[in-house]
Amino acid sequence: MLRLGPFAAAAAARCLPAWPCLGPLCLAGSRGSFARSWLPAGDRGPLSRQVRAAAGGERVPVLKTPKGTRDHPPAQAALRERLLSAVVSCFKRHGAAAIDTPVLELRDTLMGKYGEDTKLIYELQDQGGELLALRYDLTVPFARYLAMNKVTNMKRYHVAKVYRRDNPAMTRGRYREFYQCDFDIAGQFDPMIPDAECLKIVHEILSDLQLGNFLIKVNDRRILNGVFAVCGVPENKFIPVCSTVDKLDKVPWDEVRSEMVGEKGLSPEAADRIGEYVQLHGGLELIERLLQDPKLSQNKLAKEGLGDMKLLFEYLTLFGITGKISFDLSLARGLDYYTGVIFEAVLLQQENEHVEEPVSVGSVAGGGRYDGLVGMFDPKGRKVPCVGVSIGIERIFSILEQRLEASGEKLRTTETQVLVATPQKHLLAARLKLISELWDAGIKAEMLYKKDPKLLKQLHYCEDTGIPLAAIVGEQELADGVVKLRDVATREEVDIPREKLVDEIRRRLEP
Amino acid sequence: MLRLGPFAAAAAARCLPAWPCLGPLCLAGSRGSFARSWLPAGDRGPLSRQVRAAAGGERVPVLKTPKGTRDHPPAQAALRERLLSAVVSCFKRHGAAAIDTPVLELRDTLMGKYGEDTKLIYELQDQGGELLALRYDLTVPFARYLAMNKVTNMKRYHVAKVYRRDNPAMTRGRYREFYQCDFDIAGQFDPMIPDAECLKIVHEILSDLQLGNFLIKVNDRRILNGVFAVCGVPENKFIPVCSTVDKLDKVPWDEVRSEMVGEKGLSPEAADRIGEYVQLHGGLELIERLLQDPKLSQNKLAKEGLGDMKLLFEYLTLFGITGKISFDLSLARGLDYYTGVIFEAVLLQQENEHVEEPVSVGSVAGGGRYDGLVGMFDPKGRKVPCVGVSIGIERIFSILEQRLEASGEKLRTTETQVLVATPQKHLLAARLKLISELWDAGIKAEMLYKKDPKLLKQLHYCEDTGIPLAAIVGEQELADGVVKLRDVATREEVDIPREKLVDEIRRRLEP
Repeated sequence: MLRLGPFAAAAAARCLPAWPCLGPLCLAGSRGSFARSWLPAGDRGPLSRQVRAAAGGERVPVLKTPKGTRDHPPAQAALRERLLSAVVSCFKRHGAAAIDTPVLELRDTLMGKYGEDTKLIYELQDQGGELLALRYDLTVPFARYLAMNKVTNMKRYHVAKVYRRDNPAMTRGRYREFYQCDFDIAGQFDPMIPDAECLKIVHEILSDLQLGNFLIKVNDRRILNGVFAVCGVPENKFIPVCSTVDKLDKVPWDEVRSEMVGEKGLSPEAADRIGEYVQLHGGLELIERLLQDPKLSQNKLAKEGLGDMKLLFEYLTLFGITGKISFDLSLARGLDYYTGVIFEAVLLQQENEHVEEPVSVGSVAGGGRYDGLVGMFDPKGRKVPCVGVSIGIERIFSILEQRLEASGEKLRTTETQVLVATPQKHLLAARLKLISELWDAGIKAEMLYKKDPKLLKQLHYCEDTGIPLAAIVGEQELADGVVKLRDVATREEVDIPREKLVDEIRRRLEP
Repeated sequence: MLRLGPFAAAAAARCLPAWPCLGPLCLAGSRGSFARSWLPAGDRGPLSRQVRAAAGGERVPVLKTPKGTRDHPPAQAALRERLLSAVVSCFKRHGAAAIDTPVLELRDTLMGKYGEDTKLIYELQDQGGELLALRYDLTVPFARYLAMNKVTNMKRYHVAKVYRRDNPAMTRGRYREFYQCDFDIAGQFDPMIPDAECLKIVHEILSDLQLGNFLIKVNDRRILNGVFAVCGVPENKFIPVCSTVDKLDKVPWDEVRSEMVGEKGLSPEAADRIGEYVQLHGGLELIERLLQDPKLSQNKLAKEGLGDMKLLFEYLTLFGITGKISFDLSLARGLDYYTGVIFEAVLLQQENEHVEEPVSVGSVAGGGRYDGLVGMFDPKGRKVPCVGVSIGIERIFSILEQRLEASGEKLRTTETQVLVATPQKHLLAARLKLISELWDAGIKAEMLYKKDPKLLKQLHYCEDTGIPLAAIVGEQELADGVVKLRDVATREEVDIPREKLVDEIRRRLEP
């Protein structure tokens, strides 16, 4: 079934040690031929044999998740569920429907969409059949979906995992497998109305989550291209120069300038002219000023972009959110497919005072207009204009996680309402019968999986896991046809007639 | 970035047509060298060029999801959300916490766990670094998680996608990418208490979903192994013979017998002796009879298994669910890792009378005890006994989908409560201001993305998408400081003072 590759076969023949250095660090970092020359596990027989061998002093197989990925234990999963549900409820508030697409896409669907980042796509082994890859984002699959189903009008959200063979920076919330939360509006509409709604959504989510002060930077690819044109950049260098400008949020202008002149081959004069524009940021007054700019106002694209930017600011004023919006000419966004408005939200400061070293989080949301992407998939090139936003859930999660840790608050990982307990031995049957009644009535109930657990142990379990009530059946309660209902926090106990137990539990747990 | 493989390079050199037959059928089925010899898309430049070429009469790139996978458009996504939430609420009712693990696992983690099915694992291309694969189920990652984190005691659920390079049978709900919904209890407990709870969960979920009559078949690997032993099967043939027995639900005994004798090399006498046992099914009385069986009662494993089966039936009697449980000696389950109780739920008949050709669905839930799997990952081989259940959500989804279609009922795909509308032109600003107030108050609201939509069009949109209310602001309403609230179904309209609008909407939409 599994074939021995030539390299592996050679290694086996030369009797190399069966388990070369397999420490997690070694594995994570190794890209050499040695790492790839191990005999695949499938050729070694079941792992149980390996473990038995390990007990005899040999090396054990690596016990880890792949580089850049992580498990979410219950406390993290519960926090993530809360966070995702806040984001999704905002998307639903704005009338979006959910769709789901496969994690796998045809390799050809993804190629040629992400510029330089195409190299970060995970490809599947050719095992016969189609050539496949893991999705890199949710936007390209959405465009593929629209073209494939000839949908020309849709407001959808999609919360799912995406994959990038990037250099992980896990403490900053950068992973190789991570969730994206996307909201997009596809369709031919009047200018800037859907675009304004996307910014409103970012504003609502970041406000709801109380992440501290934030700023949403806005720009337009048409304005940037107009700037490049009037500064004398040849059209074929727009995209490379754009990705250089994109670095302005991390490095100072001097460095960006020398990359433009050195790597990208601009004249120093052109670079200086660009510098004058891309360091500008402001609001409506800046838009007005640029609309009067003698050079820029002559450029058709820039004029269109500035006109729309003005309209956008009008709408954002009606939404009452311009206080956190900055028209910022240095914002460029990495991806090729943007054609109009682009935006990115950044947290201005960390307000979790308890934390000594605040997490550096970078941008927490981003998006823009991509009017050409769907057309790239349509056999006749029919375009469907789209605008959308992606919430950087992993970075937000890192902040909330650290904040929760600092607060010492313990998040409940289950929703159990009642523990069914017994105070004496030989009452397993009574517990099973009672818990079954509770489950059938829709009560969230647990019991310990021991025949005869001590009462104290059962009550400790309630305290440890935050279960608010214990329903206790002993010999006396059985004889009397009652159940002793105990409030775990106050330790108060009351006998409740068995037939009234479900109602009493519901009453006690009403919000 | 992308290297030209020798085969692709040769094809390019020989000037083969750039786009050999790419019809979906051809692609899906092709496993020959030709299919694999295409020039990768990355070497052909961006797809936009391909599309432009296509407009000139050449072939277009394939627009599809990978074989055996599918998109979920909004109606399906909404139905799936309902279904998953019913399953998850049952898991929560039983006190399970959520965990999440990566879709990617180290290849070595998965190898040697699935017997013959190991060949169905999707492997990732070696792009440098670790050798990775897509998870085949949620059980092996759970065992890896327990061993890695030295967790010896946990009740968890996990709802996520898994991947199998199987032959898809999509109409029967069999896909290459599909959701699994797993509930597992890990820990050293008194016998059969967690096992009984798993069966209770299957019973609750299948009852809640009203899928029609069902049967849960139960057996125990120890009983099966005991049967094989007393019938004279050598121990090294237990697993192969077990997978032959597993086919009894699909093919008649004669065929199973000839596979045993032919392929698996059993003596005809041994096969016949097995046949006498594995065709038995019943309840407590069958367990009692087998406990008295002169041969089986002499076998230690079988005796243990039968004793535990008796205990299980006692507990299931207390849960009141034995009516739908059958102790069935033909049940074997495909996977290697089971060590004790195994079970599988099947629907007995399709009750959707509207449907002419009922979906053939097979088993809709399955699981069992796997006490050795965690130990396979632990460096010291420490065992953590586990028992769990997996709900076959895709098959259930197929049934519900077909039933919904037959009923003609239309599922709402959004939750929008109010459409903000205007009856005259030049009122976009009024709509934007009002909708922003509603969003900020937590009301789910939409508006059309047109500057001046016709009122009729706005009201039609409500009817089409099931929005119950329209909040209409015209010139008169603006002057009067009111909003006209329209009940879409009854067409009744009332003027509401603007400051009372939010409360009135909430009041109207109370359940």
